[in-house]
Amino acid sequence: MAERAALEELVRLQGEHVRELKLQKASAEQIEEEVSQLLKLKAQLGPDEGKHKFVLKTPKGTRDYNPRQMAVREKVFDTIISCFKRHGAEVIDTPVFELKDFDIAGQFDPMIPDAECLKIMCEILSSLQIGDFLVKVNDRRILDGMFAVCGVPDSKFRTICSSVDKLDKVPWEEVKNEMVGEKGLAPEVADRIGDYVQQHGGVSLVEQLLQDPKLSQNKQALEGLGDLKLLFEYLALFGIADKISFDLSLARGLDYYTGVIYEAVLLQTAAQAGEEPLGVGSVAAGGRYDGLVGMFDPKGRKVPCVGLSVGVERIFSIVEQRLEALEEKVRTTETQVLVASAQKKLLEERLKLVSELWDAGIKAELLYKKNPKLLNQLQYCEEAGIPLVAIIGEQELKDGVVKLRAVASREEVDVRREDLVKEIKRRTSQPPCIC
Amino acid sequence: MAERAALEELVRLQGEHVRELKLQKASAEQIEEEVSQLLKLKAQLGPDEGKHKFVLKTPKGTRDYNPRQMAVREKVFDTIISCFKRHGAEVIDTPVFELKDFDIAGQFDPMIPDAECLKIMCEILSSLQIGDFLVKVNDRRILDGMFAVCGVPDSKFRTICSSVDKLDKVPWEEVKNEMVGEKGLAPEVADRIGDYVQQHGGVSLVEQLLQDPKLSQNKQALEGLGDLKLLFEYLALFGIADKISFDLSLARGLDYYTGVIYEAVLLQTAAQAGEEPLGVGSVAAGGRYDGLVGMFDPKGRKVPCVGLSVGVERIFSIVEQRLEALEEKVRTTETQVLVASAQKKLLEERLKLVSELWDAGIKAELLYKKNPKLLNQLQYCEEAGIPLVAIIGEQELKDGVVKLRAVASREEVDVRREDLVKEIKRRTSQPPCIC
Repeated sequence: MAERAALEELVRLQGEHVRELKLQKASAEQIEEEVSQLLKLKAQLGPDEGKHKFVLKTPKGTRDYNPRQMAVREKVFDTIISCFKRHGAEVIDTPVFELKDFDIAGQFDPMIPDAECLKIMCEILSSLQIGDFLVKVNDRRILDGMFAVCGVPDSKFRTICSSVDKLDKVPWEEVKNEMVGEKGLAPEVADRIGDYVQQHGGVSLVEQLLQDPKLSQNKQALEGLGDLKLLFEYLALFGIADKISFDLSLARGLDYYTGVIYEAVLLQTAAQAGEEPLGVGSVAAGGRYDGLVGMFDPKGRKVPCVGLSVGVERIFSIVEQRLEALEEKVRTTETQVLVASAQKKLLEERLKLVSELWDAGIKAELLYKKNPKLLNQLQYCEEAGIPLVAIIGEQELKDGVVKLRAVASREEVDVRREDLVKEIKRRTSQPPCIC
Repeated sequence: MAERAALEELVRLQGEHVRELKLQKASAEQIEEEVSQLLKLKAQLGPDEGKHKFVLKTPKGTRDYNPRQMAVREKVFDTIISCFKRHGAEVIDTPVFELKDFDIAGQFDPMIPDAECLKIMCEILSSLQIGDFLVKVNDRRILDGMFAVCGVPDSKFRTICSSVDKLDKVPWEEVKNEMVGEKGLAPEVADRIGDYVQQHGGVSLVEQLLQDPKLSQNKQALEGLGDLKLLFEYLALFGIADKISFDLSLARGLDYYTGVIYEAVLLQTAAQAGEEPLGVGSVAAGGRYDGLVGMFDPKGRKVPCVGLSVGVERIFSIVEQRLEALEEKVRTTETQVLVASAQKKLLEERLKLVSELWDAGIKAELLYKKNPKLLNQLQYCEEAGIPLVAIIGEQELKDGVVKLRAVASREEVDVRREDLVKEIKRRTSQPPCIC
């Protein structure tokens, strides 16, 4: 086992080295030599069929946050990381600011990992409870095919793409003007593009375009549409088809992605904006791309990879803003109960009780005073957002009970000492919503 | 609330600024001006009586770890962080490589936070399950008083201290030789020191020294011993007195600490070393020190602080080493179950089932193949350490059951589909031990 781990580490380091050389634009011979070294190591490790693995990337530096910000960040990260783990993620490094989903040496069957990526996106956005969202889906091959059948010259593909990508922010007329006026596209070509890119919908739009007399003649577009049809089948099985919109104007990351692309956007509700639902921008994106040649495939072929990144900083800002708008109090500690006393000379008893609670896994505090006033202890709970107070006095000690006070309602009830842990756990078992 | 958070942030930044100026050895006038600014801000914020707060420090850079290392690190961090949270910690930044426990403006009563720090140390070391440990306790004032009554000249306090601190590694004779031969101490003075520093024990040793005719005449030593007596009372209430050893040779961090000091050491068992129990070095340390003048006190007085740091890197190495010695397999994912099928053409059914499990919060995977062989699916579980396989075939689908297989025992049992989530949770509810 230890040997295998060391070998895996060597493969990883050699992979990094090759990637670095490529970024530095090293000579082809040098790269080839290092790749062949990598393949030898990889061969020793043996095949890794079907195994999938997420890589969590580290931030480029560390920043300081105040306790309020940290509490929000922590909850956002926790939500995302537990979703990744639910899907078999391996953590390479932490904290996470970006996620990429590699499928190592994965000779996987079409669209299965792609569908899982979309499922992950939906799970994360649902559990963050930051409002309604939609995931736009398109395919690089459909875009390329569409431009070809509309008559866009090859040399103009990229610049026309960047015009199309603006359609989520500006009306079609403006996009068309840019294409024709600035970029010199023939107006009738622009109009043909317009007919396609203003369409969006579900699997029925995919089926309709599969019958489209022009598009269905293009091999690339046909492949892309066929894959999307399969993808929608899997999305229906995953129960998320209603969250996904096939959108022919989605055209981002095309320097990188080679197949299916997707992007999640938050929808502003009418109540929030006083108007029509409106996209408030991308919070997660991903797609299919070609892995580095030879990186993970023993035969040195290009390997298909599926990548997904979550805009954690963006999500964090959204949550912060909403909390500020709501003037919501964010707890910076997770303390469940304060151990307090109304009478003097009970420090020892408070220490004994708080220690019992710690040993039972309860998050508990006490004031570091010999004889604190009850009012100060209750005030501390209000300020720190501690929901419960466990109060002991001579009478409670004699009766073998603890007075448990709910800070918000001021209700008090005597709980038998041996039932205290269970009762505190019962009352604080609901994790608070983050916004 | 938002305003208070902003004000707290300003206080924090101004505090950092003052600290920075002190480190840069700025002029006294400049520091005074900035401190007065800090105090104004602090006054706006109002008193913060009794509140305690931990500060988790960030690492100076980020490193890459492989999945195996990350899995171990994550479990170590989780253990430590959940202990901090149990004690009301606020997280300032993450990940944690060091913990300092400030008590802000805490006019706290003697030894209460000190006792809590020792409790935290014991909780962390117990839950990490890295073997038997002992926490050595001493007091700066006892050391200073002891040197004075033994007749050590003031100018030699520090160098004699550093000799004493070696007593956990070398025998007394060697330490004495260093004091007398290298450092020019009179042999009879060294012998007097030797009589003290070779002693260690519990509260009875404290009581014995409180009666010591020489030491009890020294004001500083008397104060230190009185505090230790009180500390041991609290430690008994916390149920950890047997883990704590008053050790007169503990003499570290004296440039920094001003009162109680402590250090946790792991004990090597006879079985591990084939000999006497032997300390394997410090894994956590802390003590009482004077806070920066004016930092947190509205009157600009020195404020007592309690600090505690955990040697996370050290603990991590120990856990890694032991795991390697045991040739223990470390799981790098937390997947609870693989959804599998023995027959062909069941991809859709596998997708449906895995989606049900994800939605119920179960960590689940499936192979990204349309028709994977059952043997390959089982092999994948063995390699990845996945404990359960949920197998479906035509018969299971017809009967409304799922065949649940325990990978280790190869036992299989039919579980009704509606009970599957509960059964998987029941079987995987024990968190694995980290070593």
